[in-house]
Formats: sequence, C-alpha cells, structure tokens
Amino acid sequence: MRIVIALGGNALLRRGEPMTAEHQRANVRVAAQALARVAKEHELVISHGNGPQVGLLALQGAAYKDAEAYPLDVLGAETQGMIGYLVEQELGNLLPFERPIATLLTMVEVDPDDPAFTDPTKFVGPIYDEAAAKALAAEKGWVVKPDGAHWRRVVPSPRPKRIFELRPMRWVLEHGAVVICAGGGGIPTMYARGEDRRLVGVEAVIDKDLASSLLARDLEADLYVMATDVDAVYRDWGTPEQTRLEHVTPEELGAMQFPAGSMGPKVDAAREFAAATGKRAAIGSLEQIDGLVAGTAGTNVAPAGSGAN
Amino acid sequence: MRIVIALGGNALLRRGEPMTAEHQRANVRVAAQALARVAKEHELVISHGNGPQVGLLALQGAAYKDAEAYPLDVLGAETQGMIGYLVEQELGNLLPFERPIATLLTMVEVDPDDPAFTDPTKFVGPIYDEAAAKALAAEKGWVVKPDGAHWRRVVPSPRPKRIFELRPMRWVLEHGAVVICAGGGGIPTMYARGEDRRLVGVEAVIDKDLASSLLARDLEADLYVMATDVDAVYRDWGTPEQTRLEHVTPEELGAMQFPAGSMGPKVDAAREFAAATGKRAAIGSLEQIDGLVAGTAGTNVAPAGSGAN
Repeated sequence: MRIVIALGGNALLRRGEPMTAEHQRANVRVAAQALARVAKEHELVISHGNGPQVGLLALQGAAYKDAEAYPLDVLGAETQGMIGYLVEQELGNLLPFERPIATLLTMVEVDPDDPAFTDPTKFVGPIYDEAAAKALAAEKGWVVKPDGAHWRRVVPSPRPKRIFELRPMRWVLEHGAVVICAGGGGIPTMYARGEDRRLVGVEAVIDKDLASSLLARDLEADLYVMATDVDAVYRDWGTPEQTRLEHVTPEELGAMQFPAGSMGPKVDAAREFAAATGKRAAIGSLEQIDGLVAGTAGTNVAPAGSGAN
Repeated sequence: MRIVIALGGNALLRRGEPMTAEHQRANVRVAAQALARVAKEHELVISHGNGPQVGLLALQGAAYKDAEAYPLDVLGAETQGMIGYLVEQELGNLLPFERPIATLLTMVEVDPDDPAFTDPTKFVGPIYDEAAAKALAAEKGWVVKPDGAHWRRVVPSPRPKRIFELRPMRWVLEHGAVVICAGGGGIPTMYARGEDRRLVGVEAVIDKDLASSLLARDLEADLYVMATDVDAVYRDWGTPEQTRLEHVTPEELGAMQFPAGSMGPKVDAAREFAAATGKRAAIGSLEQIDGLVAGTAGTNVAPAGSGAN
C-alpha cells in the first residue's frame, strides 16, 4: 500500500515539555520506531505539524531586537528543514542503509479569496498585553485578539488548494524512497493579484491534516492516517452519551458535530479523503500504528460497500 | 550539460545589509534571474551558503532566555528550509510552470577523526567579552577564541565525506527538475563511536564549496561553478604582481598559495573537482554566469589537454 501518515504535534513534543532539540529528538526517535515498521512493509509518505516550533521561532525572533523577525512563510520553511531533518535522521537509523529517504520542501497554494482571510482565527507567536498588542497591530498590520487573559496575533487558516512539489514526491516514491514533506501543512503561498502569475509567501497557517488529506488524494494513497494523541474520534465527547467511533462512512461523519479547534479539521480531512477516493482514512494514536494500518484500531472512515472499512 | 552552481553568501545578503527576509528575498530574486538563464539550457543543481543565516538564528536563540538554543546541526537544517524556500519560489517565478523544482534536505557525513575536531577554526554566533565567553565555554563545552576585540565560539570545519541524499537528487534531475540542495555545505553528521552505526548531528560547519565540489563529482556534473562576489581568482592578490587567473590547470593552482579564509576553500574545491573528473570548474561572479558557463569569464580550472579549458 501507499500510505500517507500525518504526524500530530505530540509526536515531536509532549505537552508541557521544554522545547529543546533534545526533547524533540527523543520524541521523534519514538515516532520513528512506529514509522519504520510501516516503511518496511509499505510505500510511506510522512507529513507533520509545526505549531510549537513556529511559535518558538517567533518568540526568538521577537526577543532579538537587532533584526526584524521573519514572516510566517519563512518561519514555516525553517521548521520544514528542522523537523524534516530530525525525522529523516532518526528514521534512517532504523531502516536499512539502502532505503532512501527524501525530505522535500513543500509550498502550498491558497486562494486570496478564501474567507479565512477576512476572519483570521489561528493564534501565533508571543502573548502581549492589550496596549502592546494593539501597537504592534498598528505598526505591522497584524490582527490581534484576546487569548484568555492576554492578547496575541491571529492569522488566517485558508484551505490548501494545490501542492507544488507533487511530481518530485511521486518520482522518489516510485524509486522506493520514504518521503517527508508538507510539514506544517506546507508553506502558504498565493499568486499575487494584478501581477503576472507571481507566487508570493502568505502570512497564514494551513491546517496540516487538511493539507495532508490533499496530499494523500493527489498521490493516490491507499490509506491516509492521522496519528495524534487520542486513540480515536468520539461522538458527544465529554457527555454521558460519549461513543467511540470505530468504523464510519463519510456521510455518517458529515452528519455529526465536532469542536472546530481540535477534532474538526481531522474529521473533515478524513471525510474528504474517503469520499473522494473510496479509500480508508484512519485517526488514532501513533502507538497503535499497526492497528491503524490494518484497520483494527482508531477511527476508520470509508464509504459504505467500499470494502475498505 | 549538468551544472552544479554553489551560490556565495552575497547572492543572499550583501555586506552591511540588514538581514531581513525582504532583503534576502530581493537578492535571491536577482540571483534567480541568472539561475533561470542557466536552467533554461541545462540540468541545474543549486547549492548555497548559510553563514549569516545560521548566525542570526544563533543570536535569536541566545536572546530568548526561556528556551535552550538549538545546536548547529538543527540550525543548519532550518536554514536549508528557509533559503531553499526563497530560491525555489523566486526561481519558480521565472521558469515555465511545467519545470519542476525540488529542494532536498541534505545531510553530509564527516569523519570523527577529522583533524578539524582537534583544531576548531570557524567563528559562529554572538560576540562576548572574555569572561562571558569562558563561562559559556565551561557551561556548554564550547571552544571560544578571541575574534578581534571580542570573543566568540569556534567550531570545527571538517571535510565532507559522503552526501546521503544523492539518489533522490539523481532521480529528480533525471526527470528534468532543478535541484536545490546541500545548503550551508549540508547538515554535518557522523556515525557515533561505539554504537551500532547510529547517525548523529555534529556541532560543526562544513565548507559549502568543498561540499558542493563533492556533490558535483558524485552527480557527475559536467561543470562546477562557484558564484561569488569577485570576478576571478587572483595570484598575489593585493601586491604589485597581482595577476588575474583565467585558465589554469589543477596542478598549476596546487602550486600557488591562497589565504585560508577566503579563496583557499574555493581554489581547493575547484582543483579537486577538475583533477578528479577531467571537467572544468569555474570561479567568478554570478552576474557573469553566462560567461562562467561558457568558460569565457572568471577563473577556469581544468586539466591540460582535457579540452575543457
């Protein structure tokens, strides 16, 4: 099978852990054990989140006063290099030397007319008090919003439209390489209005599960796995009616409600992949990767009668 | 022809310019004009330096006190993502959409017994006063040395031994992609002693011209170009006997002396490529890229009778 696995943030950094390179490497090493088992049996494409890593780069950039902080597209590119390196190196230590691994920088096109641009929702970077936040908003053209007791910058989270590096990904996959790509949902880019098809970076964040769903569809993956820190998707989570979802169709899932912030994008990403391809998407924990690949663990989403569920 | 071009630091940032993303992008845009002309006629592999970018990340990491700064291998990986992104995007804006571009993360193996590890010579990161530098050296196990009036950390610059991602580079090149790789000379790695072939990152810096020379040899390039901010290599630079070198053999070059810090590695990189392959290496300015490709500008190094000079 050709399998796309989107690694959740906790595969790189557990909640509350200091964000040292050492901690991240230790977590990646654990994740690599699971990934190596899959890579030994299947074609494997790995994508990953980058939220805390972009956050740290933004904090470091803000702390150093002598140079202007880089924009979000550039910070995203930096995290693709950093996280891609840790995953490539630790996975490489577990696979036979002969197995090639390719970490490909990935740019993703978004639509300048995406409604997300009129309603930015993703918090990024340091916290400020209200006055400082509003001063920065005026100075840099940021949108700032209250986040609990503090204020923070918010950026749009537009939908991914197109992945630019699909052909190199396919070529190296066909040669047997494990591919690491689309980190952080890809670097957000768009064609600038008015100019002649000029691609530019965008100060935005693309949801990595939605981007990986598009990636899995475009690469004609047989299975799309979102590896996160919960064992499955639950209906009516936190209520007495709470139900673990094991096998559902995209239509059943589409009729349910999930919180926008947490499971929402994962559920949408699974539903879109399964509906578009007739193949299975799975959501669960990385520790259960064998069960997720087999379809015996986590939440499995596939069309009725597809034989994939 | 298959051409490897190593971009010097000034292709990304001119001396004295503030290191904003905007300045770097503007410089990359100029460099991309030259690179696009080559890409339209030839197979093209682009590598690049990362000294100032790693320096800025180190400064930002040191300024933000709440998290430990990342080690040099991780910072190098970040700059491969960042610079690769700028080059891929700006070059993509000048090439037909159909022309694929692939930016590949690159790890390079160095030898733990390389003499560079007993004599670190490369200054990296912030400047300190002597007391602060020595305190950091004791705390972090750094080697620090005086750099003019200040003190700085120094790290080893071992020779590149092996580039790990050669196969994916070859595959995408064969499909017609422009390849961006080996940024900053590649991420320095080595097999840890005593353990079972475990690859680990190294706190070191690999010279990008020497790494690109190895890359050009391994990819069987027909031409290796080092694009820098001088028009050619000069013999007896700064003396009344100063002579511009236009066509030389590796043997002639080997008999001359060059300052270790500036032209030394470029001259060695050109000499090694030409001697090992019988092909031509060229050193000159990016503005003269057409002449460098044609062999009519810059300093051209090729064996006598090879027909390449």
